[in-house]
Amino acid sequence: MDRNAEFKRWKAQGLSKADLSRKGSVDEDVVELVQLLNGREQYFTTSSCAGRIILLDGNINGFEVQKQNCCWLLVTHKPCVKDDVIVALKKANGDAILKFEPLILHVQCRQLQDAQILHSVAIDSGFRNSGITVGKRGKTMLAIRSTHGLEVPLSHKGKLMVTEEYIDFLLKIANQKMEENKKRIERFYNCLQHALEKETITNSHPKEKIKDKNNSSYTHKKKRNPEACGKCIEENDKELENDDDPGISVTIFPEDY
Amino acid sequence: MDRNAEFKRWKAQGLSKADLSRKGSVDEDVVELVQLLNGREQYFTTSSCAGRIILLDGNINGFEVQKQNCCWLLVTHKPCVKDDVIVALKKANGDAILKFEPLILHVQCRQLQDAQILHSVAIDSGFRNSGITVGKRGKTMLAIRSTHGLEVPLSHKGKLMVTEEYIDFLLKIANQKMEENKKRIERFYNCLQHALEKETITNSHPKEKIKDKNNSSYTHKKKRNPEACGKCIEENDKELENDDDPGISVTIFPEDY
Repeated sequence: MDRNAEFKRWKAQGLSKADLSRKGSVDEDVVELVQLLNGREQYFTTSSCAGRIILLDGNINGFEVQKQNCCWLLVTHKPCVKDDVIVALKKANGDAILKFEPLILHVQCRQLQDAQILHSVAIDSGFRNSGITVGKRGKTMLAIRSTHGLEVPLSHKGKLMVTEEYIDFLLKIANQKMEENKKRIERFYNCLQHALEKETITNSHPKEKIKDKNNSSYTHKKKRNPEACGKCIEENDKELENDDDPGISVTIFPEDY
Repeated sequence: MDRNAEFKRWKAQGLSKADLSRKGSVDEDVVELVQLLNGREQYFTTSSCAGRIILLDGNINGFEVQKQNCCWLLVTHKPCVKDDVIVALKKANGDAILKFEPLILHVQCRQLQDAQILHSVAIDSGFRNSGITVGKRGKTMLAIRSTHGLEVPLSHKGKLMVTEEYIDFLLKIANQKMEENKKRIERFYNCLQHALEKETITNSHPKEKIKDKNNSSYTHKKKRNPEACGKCIEENDKELENDDDPGISVTIFPEDY
């Protein structure tokens, strides 16, 4: 079976399967993005979480939280108030931890070039920890991830280690991160739409392909027309930009990384 | 210039350049790993941080920490005690945040297949947020990242929001995460050495290549010989394993992802 046909088969299988998550549906804030991707022949999403605030009760025998030894006290994809957390914390008898987890989206791509385009859009939209995985059978997957988290231990062996005032302070930060995450999702949607339009135009005018390539958002992203994709940002990558970072040892910073 | 020659040139350029980090040298805990990679013709490292505990003073005008508006109060690659943090916190007049950041390593790879092998080893060693980037000029980079962080707001507008007892509790967790990070680096080193040895044997016996391929650590990682790479783990990926996770919507979990 050729590559294209195999991808089509994978996609049909993938999209026909039941949603296996406990929630059973795609989060509201990523529905449009998921639809945009699944509407294109070269992509389909395999898992998604729009972003969430979670409170979990960790291992009571140690500090390390292992999934199998922890339980979920609270999960919300909406802004969260102090009282919700205080009530949920009463059920904790281990080491409770509050986390904000930003968007995570896995997209299977027809070929490497499709993953590269999507990766470029993700990075430009602020999802700096995104990366491609190429499986042994050639399955090409892009994981879209942000650096934008929060992970705060709140209690130890059931005993609350912080004040209610601190929880209130913390939730303001978590809610603000959720808001910023939502903006990045919107930015990602807009940038993606723009990149896909450009690509469609390029592909439907093959004679102009080479000429147009020099203006495409993928090949010259830094010269991208700000009108067409006004919300795209050229954000600094904390991992790679080391001028004022005393901890990362750098031997080379590749120009076109 | 062919692909191999171009990579050689990049590598020679990269390794001859001065270390641009403020620290000016590779962190002790990753020196061996960096040497192992740079000693192989198909890889070279472009930046590294072994893992660190940092205390930074965020933007005093809002919650959001932007790098340009924050300063580093404390950075350490070693376990940290309460008094160090207490002293450093006295200099904070914004929103101080304590973070644990695990290993981050960028490795440029000769070709996609080399990146795939390294990626597989990284995932198996616990660095689940690793991913490949393929640049427009074909530069292939693997970013090795862990899910294993901590990010805790400590003060607001210079006012400490937690107790000293909490800081002590928090540092125990941060130090334990640093210890676990160190173990993962060792595991990564051992697994990588094993994978590279296997690959060398395969390449030096091309007639047996197809036969051997079925036993290589890359193609059959789940059947990897536990004696040869005893420290490798098959850890669950929180991103992808969704059975007891109410937040991630899944339509398909690819078998060989």
